[in-house]
Amino acid sequence: MSAEFDKAVALQAAGGDAFAGHTSPAYANMVGPFGGITAAQALNAVLQHPQRLGEPVSLTVNFCAALSDGPFTVTARPARTNRSTQHWVIEMTQDGATVLTGTAFTATRRDTWSTGEHSLPAVPAPADVPLPAARGRVEWINRYEMRFVDGGFPAAWDGSVGATSRTQLWLRDNPPRPLDFASLAALSDVFFPRIWRRRATLVPIGTVSMTVYFHADAAQLAATGTGYLLGQAQAQAFRNGYFDQTAQLWNEAGELLATTHQVVYYKE
Amino acid sequence: MSAEFDKAVALQAAGGDAFAGHTSPAYANMVGPFGGITAAQALNAVLQHPQRLGEPVSLTVNFCAALSDGPFTVTARPARTNRSTQHWVIEMTQDGATVLTGTAFTATRRDTWSTGEHSLPAVPAPADVPLPAARGRVEWINRYEMRFVDGGFPAAWDGSVGATSRTQLWLRDNPPRPLDFASLAALSDVFFPRIWRRRATLVPIGTVSMTVYFHADAAQLAATGTGYLLGQAQAQAFRNGYFDQTAQLWNEAGELLATTHQVVYYKE
Repeated sequence: MSAEFDKAVALQAAGGDAFAGHTSPAYANMVGPFGGITAAQALNAVLQHPQRLGEPVSLTVNFCAALSDGPFTVTARPARTNRSTQHWVIEMTQDGATVLTGTAFTATRRDTWSTGEHSLPAVPAPADVPLPAARGRVEWINRYEMRFVDGGFPAAWDGSVGATSRTQLWLRDNPPRPLDFASLAALSDVFFPRIWRRRATLVPIGTVSMTVYFHADAAQLAATGTGYLLGQAQAQAFRNGYFDQTAQLWNEAGELLATTHQVVYYKE
Repeated sequence: MSAEFDKAVALQAAGGDAFAGHTSPAYANMVGPFGGITAAQALNAVLQHPQRLGEPVSLTVNFCAALSDGPFTVTARPARTNRSTQHWVIEMTQDGATVLTGTAFTATRRDTWSTGEHSLPAVPAPADVPLPAARGRVEWINRYEMRFVDGGFPAAWDGSVGATSRTQLWLRDNPPRPLDFASLAALSDVFFPRIWRRRATLVPIGTVSMTVYFHADAAQLAATGTGYLLGQAQAQAFRNGYFDQTAQLWNEAGELLATTHQVVYYKE
């Protein structure tokens, strides 16, 4: 069903800045839902807010606790509205306890001098990259088509430490769904943990904070449509329980649609 | 005075989660204060909070409006406290209007398998890199010692568009001051705008959102002391009024102390 994503991020107005949502079994992770879908739900509260001005330029979400399967409330408060920009404070709760905090920035964009500096790497076309053979061990994986160009899952979980944590893959929603801000936010969290790649070891992990910078506007996302995105992700440091990830998402035309960063807890 | 930084970030408890501070003329920018000092003030509300658990791992600040010279109130609310981690919601106001929103994550860290992946670039030692000849055109610049290794200010503001926005420099507080979390947050914002470097044109700019991931703990910062940091910053995309910056800060021993990202408004 291509409607799974739309169903998952659907919110009902619940008075003032509050919106009611529900976790989605289609995006279930090991414990709680896939963080990307939670980020998309948080952003959607901003997108659906009647006072919203402009389009998302940045989003930061902090994952405070694994969500329980069930309903949640998300509030999106316009903390500051300027002439063409707006700052949002986001909080998601379940049973009165905070499970996510965040901020977002929206703006009306104008045409200016523009250029990409980080270019699409030289990679084979999506059709020339095979699909992984196995079905995902967690349900949300099946909501994405992932064609690993480089740095896929280790061939063996044998603890052999490599020199790089970089992964490159073509990816899109499965089944294909026209790209929008909410789905791009979710796609920003699709990379498997860099420490698994680097150490070929399945240590317990959990994303703590993720930031997405949207370089594309709605027209570019619409033009990208159901095409593939080339995702590239790499860690810069692993230190005493936390590592970072810096990532880029280009469309097939080579436009850098989003850059994204996260910091991730790991055990051991 | 090495006390300028400490004076600038000083806050007085103002009841509950609120702290009172004041902008510092020593860190004045073109309009309002240097964003880095505002970020440090925001983080300091978390650091001084009596309920704080652990050390900063991530910080996001959103600059909603230029601060006016004068007093401000900053609130740091522990939205969620887990066993060894804590999520903070930050807001700074002047005369009741929001001028900054933010979030932070603190944690008690444990010794784990650790490694740097993004290594210190091959650069000459700080002593072999000359100081810029000119005094800063804005006051805050004089609070930092900056030795540009590569990608300093354009020789001429002639609008000649280059191929890269990368800058590398050795930097530290001026006069030298032992590194701590607050000063590292401020140092994360020290890079001049990537679009000036790329286009050799002084277009109006303003940072909208900045995120800092702290890879170092207090002991590593103390060991770094008054040594230099190698800062490297580069944009990935400039598009319709906003560009991003991704940056790294290493100490002279080659340890990656922080990685930081920001998205910046530009005109034209």
